[in-house]
Amino acid sequence: MGEAELSLAAVRDALVREEDSIVFALIERARRPRNAPAYAAAAAAGGRSLAEFFVREAEVLHAKAGQYQKPEDVPFFPQDLPSPLFPTKDYPKVLHSFASSVSVNDAIWKMYFNELLPLFTVDGDDGNYAETVALDFACLKALSRRIHIGKYVAEVKFKDASQDYSPLIRAKDTKALMNLLTFKAVEEKVKRRVEKKARIFGQNVTLEDNADKQEGNAGDSECKVNPEVLSKLYDLWVMPLTKDVEVDSISVQASLNIN
Amino acid sequence: MGEAELSLAAVRDALVREEDSIVFALIERARRPRNAPAYAAAAAAGGRSLAEFFVREAEVLHAKAGQYQKPEDVPFFPQDLPSPLFPTKDYPKVLHSFASSVSVNDAIWKMYFNELLPLFTVDGDDGNYAETVALDFACLKALSRRIHIGKYVAEVKFKDASQDYSPLIRAKDTKALMNLLTFKAVEEKVKRRVEKKARIFGQNVTLEDNADKQEGNAGDSECKVNPEVLSKLYDLWVMPLTKDVEVDSISVQASLNIN
Repeated sequence: MGEAELSLAAVRDALVREEDSIVFALIERARRPRNAPAYAAAAAAGGRSLAEFFVREAEVLHAKAGQYQKPEDVPFFPQDLPSPLFPTKDYPKVLHSFASSVSVNDAIWKMYFNELLPLFTVDGDDGNYAETVALDFACLKALSRRIHIGKYVAEVKFKDASQDYSPLIRAKDTKALMNLLTFKAVEEKVKRRVEKKARIFGQNVTLEDNADKQEGNAGDSECKVNPEVLSKLYDLWVMPLTKDVEVDSISVQASLNIN
Repeated sequence: MGEAELSLAAVRDALVREEDSIVFALIERARRPRNAPAYAAAAAAGGRSLAEFFVREAEVLHAKAGQYQKPEDVPFFPQDLPSPLFPTKDYPKVLHSFASSVSVNDAIWKMYFNELLPLFTVDGDDGNYAETVALDFACLKALSRRIHIGKYVAEVKFKDASQDYSPLIRAKDTKALMNLLTFKAVEEKVKRRVEKKARIFGQNVTLEDNADKQEGNAGDSECKVNPEVLSKLYDLWVMPLTKDVEVDSISVQASLNIN
């Protein structure tokens, strides 16, 4: 995101577009069954799983190519990432550089593998482990980016009402901060929208003029990912983790202003 | 694909599902403008572009993870790919091992960068080069897989009617072979279906009950990728290249039978 874009409307547009990426990534991962061996400790990688091996190595490659320069692009394994080999463009700095340090990727990692994956993949093992972990990486990247766009949300909300936030930050009242950052009506709308996206993007499109299907009203069992999983994902994890990012970012921002 | 799956119906199902992946990948790439610097020769990579550097390195990583064991997974840079570091599952061999050698990836590469990319990305440079080439790699992979599933199509068609194919193969009559492999009515249907998929998957989904939008009838200008680009992509490149794969595969198969 660039300087000119830092309005609540622009940030919301970015969040809405990211929903499509998350739904696409989950639909693609759902082509393959669970494929548990991809997540088991492997001697070849010093006890790491294929999934961890792949994400670590993919992040090294993406870093060489110039990724992870923006606050919303947060690596899962930031230790010892190489510098870009190729010239990168400087982004207008809209967030304090300290914002880069805010990361909830450990929580995203655990949530994805322990909670989410069993909800939208079927039991089974078809042997396509390499493809599977590449699809996992795409899901993790989309989720992480959506959640870390919270850094911009925080910046916009804080600028709009610093007088409301500052006392709570000074008192380290995380619960009150969280309440102030929560807009129930908006959250309900987001949940219904991602559910609808899963219904529309996950349908089997045929040339028959089946009005039901076109309206995305096909039985949810026919969808490639159960639309309710998307609603649950946002309710239980994406929106709470985004707010964790917001609280962390606002606290960082405020402590810098105070000192 | 496995042994039990090698029927024309199963192969067609695989092709239909792959359409979704191609449409998703193009929609994702279209988030970013052309970003021409990603395709320019770069000193850092010995004169290679960032795009080529990225695809080469990504293929090395995917190979280590166990990719490229199946006939439809064909690398763009097969030279010196490492062996898998992780245990892989043996796939039931439904195609002669010589089928692995059939590849039209050079043509796919040229088509994608020279012809297709300018059709569905807007002019411009937003600096997100690393993200851009990662999205290109996803497009290339999906297109290559779709086209190389032609190896199975060839096997099924040849088994069903080897008496029709064999004389043409012996005469090396590529044009007549191509005609025999062409089913105009099916191709028209495929073109209309991918266009419809682009319209449905590329719409901006909102909670308003806009019947037009739900039916995927929103103006094409509102779609993230112009649906006509998908129809053209299949007409001019995907279906012809798939048939090139079919002709090559059938010729290989037949020459082995004859000798």
